[in-house]
Amino acid sequence: MISNRMKPFVANNSAVRAMFEEGNRLRAQFGDENVYDFSLGNPNVPAPKEVNEAIIRLAQEEDPVVLHGYMNNAGFEDVRAKIAASINKRFGTDFAARNLIMTVGAASGLNILLKAILDPGDEVITFAPYFVEYGNYVANYDGKIIPVEPDTATFQPNLDAFADKINGRTKAVIVNTPHNPTGVVYSEETIKRLAEILETKQKELGTVIYLISDEPYRELAYDGVEVPYLTKYYDNTLVGYSYSKSLSLPGERIGYVVIPDEADGAEELIEAATIANRINGSVNAPSLIQKVIAECLDCTVDLEFYDRNRRTLYEGLKDVGLECIKPQGAFYLFVKSPVPDEKEFVAEAKKHHILLVPGSSFACPGYVRLAYCVSYETIVNSLPVFAELMKTYK
Amino acid sequence: MISNRMKPFVANNSAVRAMFEEGNRLRAQFGDENVYDFSLGNPNVPAPKEVNEAIIRLAQEEDPVVLHGYMNNAGFEDVRAKIAASINKRFGTDFAARNLIMTVGAASGLNILLKAILDPGDEVITFAPYFVEYGNYVANYDGKIIPVEPDTATFQPNLDAFADKINGRTKAVIVNTPHNPTGVVYSEETIKRLAEILETKQKELGTVIYLISDEPYRELAYDGVEVPYLTKYYDNTLVGYSYSKSLSLPGERIGYVVIPDEADGAEELIEAATIANRINGSVNAPSLIQKVIAECLDCTVDLEFYDRNRRTLYEGLKDVGLECIKPQGAFYLFVKSPVPDEKEFVAEAKKHHILLVPGSSFACPGYVRLAYCVSYETIVNSLPVFAELMKTYK
Repeated sequence: MISNRMKPFVANNSAVRAMFEEGNRLRAQFGDENVYDFSLGNPNVPAPKEVNEAIIRLAQEEDPVVLHGYMNNAGFEDVRAKIAASINKRFGTDFAARNLIMTVGAASGLNILLKAILDPGDEVITFAPYFVEYGNYVANYDGKIIPVEPDTATFQPNLDAFADKINGRTKAVIVNTPHNPTGVVYSEETIKRLAEILETKQKELGTVIYLISDEPYRELAYDGVEVPYLTKYYDNTLVGYSYSKSLSLPGERIGYVVIPDEADGAEELIEAATIANRINGSVNAPSLIQKVIAECLDCTVDLEFYDRNRRTLYEGLKDVGLECIKPQGAFYLFVKSPVPDEKEFVAEAKKHHILLVPGSSFACPGYVRLAYCVSYETIVNSLPVFAELMKTYK
Repeated sequence: MISNRMKPFVANNSAVRAMFEEGNRLRAQFGDENVYDFSLGNPNVPAPKEVNEAIIRLAQEEDPVVLHGYMNNAGFEDVRAKIAASINKRFGTDFAARNLIMTVGAASGLNILLKAILDPGDEVITFAPYFVEYGNYVANYDGKIIPVEPDTATFQPNLDAFADKINGRTKAVIVNTPHNPTGVVYSEETIKRLAEILETKQKELGTVIYLISDEPYRELAYDGVEVPYLTKYYDNTLVGYSYSKSLSLPGERIGYVVIPDEADGAEELIEAATIANRINGSVNAPSLIQKVIAECLDCTVDLEFYDRNRRTLYEGLKDVGLECIKPQGAFYLFVKSPVPDEKEFVAEAKKHHILLVPGSSFACPGYVRLAYCVSYETIVNSLPVFAELMKTYK
């Protein structure tokens, strides 16, 4: 009864559901406190109090016909202007309201950008390990995802392999920094080299290649590391942002895309992406929450919470002999499996009630992802269990 | 720079924008009160006060990690259970939480249903006049929209012509009642005949044909007319609902789809549509507003406001010699153009600062749509201007 296109998704989904149900079964049997669930990238730090304060104020004071009403498919003009001003102030950019489209989270933002640019058979390059939904978003518009094999020494993008993948069908490149699943922040040097390669290839091929910067983790950076703003390094950069992590609002589905004037065909692209927002069925980003975030642009969640988790888990895992790049952003650790088949390690860990995601889910087998957006107690209590688990591999 | 697929949309959009800008120009030049803008289907009645009360209460009392957090892609289980119970109570149905998926408005709801069922070349039938976005939604999944010519005597669906359009590629039929742009409510007799035709064709062809009931105007019904609940007449009915009009929350993007257990392949279809919600980039319907509507299930906007507009405009237009079916629902009148080319009439009306939408935009030339979700004063003041306009055609 369902389309042939959806059948593989449904088949694959039962595996995901089985994993999820197994987690619930473990929790029911052994108690929440005895299950160490590092499998879900769900923010567990509450939204800053300013968010609910803004919600209440707007509900009390704003005209409900405006607050809950239709607006331009790109979003409220005043909201976009405020966000543009905030980005400009922080990063020295020069965006106006017209360069922003408010979206139903970053996922929807990536979708409208891809819908705006992709024709069947067009290629979109991304760097393994990568968020598996990128492949689905690209497939939504009959594009083809082209993964670049990982550089497991640094988990910075493998730029030599990258250059070889670019051809006349390459329409876009998706990067994600700070990065899911590794927590790596792309260095300025990396970005500069990436931009150089793209510039050269554009000239060589006589095509336009958009660099799509997926930035839901932008604010989650530690140790004072700088997260370069990519539009400053490459004119054809498009940005997809989300407040899911920075304000802990993942359920509210609020984000935006930036299409700078410097991008080739910017005006037409802004119009196409705005129309895509309408046609895809979003129509516009949720209205109340648009107004809310415009009042919370200087807020972020308590980063110290994630940072403490990061340091404790990183040091703890190192102590029991696990190998991993020290992450500088996001809320993930990407750990080398002590055995080549990381699914075996995931299964063994589950016996100890530790839930991990295999790297294969990010096109990078041999590794596992741990999301440390969990309680500090979970991390502290998990460490002796990891020690126990590692005895299997001594 | 944009995809070939998006080019016609961008081209067409400039016409829409030109119309919109022309309206703004008229308002700037002659003053708001001297422009009679019937072109926009935007609710102008505020949301019931219970909505903002619920928003404030939830922001004050609910755990923010839950209120703004991820949930199942289908939406909060408790919200879906409450809505299912409310539908069951009103219409004698028997839905559970599992039969509902919360969506980013009805537009997104239709999209996930179509994504779940359509393969390239599959056909979706709808009845002219119809909401032009249906064609775009179907095209999103490479389906083909098949319009049935209108029965302009009643604007009930033309069922004889309908039966002839059904073939082995027919995957779905979209109906919309109360209806945009005519305001007609499909009678129980019509629904029964429609269901009969579908049952017969399913047997004859050995296929499954889903009836998709797009119901954003369900609560906007006047004169005590009954709006039949379609799942009771045809097992393969899927429902798309929105709170945009019933609670005046169009900007919030909140609605749901219903996939009854009786529908063929219900379980797989629910799973596919839930995955489509994720893959399309919505991920889930906005979380706070989900919880809000669950507390406002017995509320609707002030229908008396729309009803007074309806009666006044309908009688007024009849008095100046315009012909039109008396609408029983929604907030539209579909008026016969006094000249065969309704675009000529739209242009003439604009000279009098009356803004209308040509029926061609709904695949039904020769008619114009008036949206009466405007102030009562606009309607009262427009009537002498309509009288003046009609002198052109005497």
